[in-house]
Amino acid sequence: MKTLKDKIMKDGRVINGNILKVDSFINHQMDIKLFNEMGKEFKKRFENKEVTKILTLEVSGIGIAAITSQYFDYVPVVFAKKHTGANFVENAYEAEVYSYTKKQTYNVKVNKNFIEEKDKVLIIDDFLANGKAALGLIDIVKQAKAEIAGVGIVIEKGFQNGRRDLEDLGIDVESLAVIESFNDGKVIFK
Amino acid sequence: MKTLKDKIMKDGRVINGNILKVDSFINHQMDIKLFNEMGKEFKKRFENKEVTKILTLEVSGIGIAAITSQYFDYVPVVFAKKHTGANFVENAYEAEVYSYTKKQTYNVKVNKNFIEEKDKVLIIDDFLANGKAALGLIDIVKQAKAEIAGVGIVIEKGFQNGRRDLEDLGIDVESLAVIESFNDGKVIFK
Repeated sequence: MKTLKDKIMKDGRVINGNILKVDSFINHQMDIKLFNEMGKEFKKRFENKEVTKILTLEVSGIGIAAITSQYFDYVPVVFAKKHTGANFVENAYEAEVYSYTKKQTYNVKVNKNFIEEKDKVLIIDDFLANGKAALGLIDIVKQAKAEIAGVGIVIEKGFQNGRRDLEDLGIDVESLAVIESFNDGKVIFK
Repeated sequence: MKTLKDKIMKDGRVINGNILKVDSFINHQMDIKLFNEMGKEFKKRFENKEVTKILTLEVSGIGIAAITSQYFDYVPVVFAKKHTGANFVENAYEAEVYSYTKKQTYNVKVNKNFIEEKDKVLIIDDFLANGKAALGLIDIVKQAKAEIAGVGIVIEKGFQNGRRDLEDLGIDVESLAVIESFNDGKVIFK
């Protein structure tokens, strides 16, 4: 998706050689016009798929998923919770997700009422790298015996094995920008 | 806002006498059609205010703020971060927020680049009770020497002192549904 790649080239920053910071337009400040372009593009990529629900993971997926829902007939968006505390999730499906950025295992939770067996679930997230977050969400959809319509990703690190692990499960993965490598602090797209 | 109050009566649940659970349509599963109605209503309530940026707090405010931005000329949305970990916020304004629900003090952070002195900031959040979260966000806007256009809240617990503390600072507070009391597990609106 050209608009997104241009934006990454312009405002993304590569730090420590392999971390792409997109906090000025995706995951701290959010560019809602760009999110609408992304939502439209996800609809195009999953045009032939029936989608009854969008599932994402707090925190960075929420804004993208909310805007994207508007292009899928305003289907409900569910975000799996990582931080529950006193606002506990009752009656939950749970999956373990290891985060390489935070070096920590999360127990992500979704209330069982919000994914039903009849649902066709589109999973949306901001990044795909090793695929652990997406695999956790897939695990939850499978526990609910619902169908996975696909996985829609904003930025994929194409040099990690996330896509392969998802495709091995027969899942349709669509990424709006695929990074082939970081070359000396510059982003090279596939 | 009638649609919202009707939805709360229909799908909200009062637990332990004074906690209103709206997780089936606001803060775990999100009703994006309803969020659009809320965004439209915020625009109506703040019609005469210039808004250049929307500020909210992760997690529950993000979806509402993202959708609301569409009714304010797609201004950028910034969410203050509570959970930073390895994805640290560089160069940050910080404010302490005590959460009564989680019985925990958070250090909320916003990258200084994302609120500028010239900004007119609309603060959006899902709940207003004692006002600690809103006061933390106001503190951050003030550190940036920006202007506060107002505070827009989805559900206000009118029997707590959040509104009073904000209005004492001269801030315009608009809530889409104000709860007067919980009467025997039933929500009574003002």
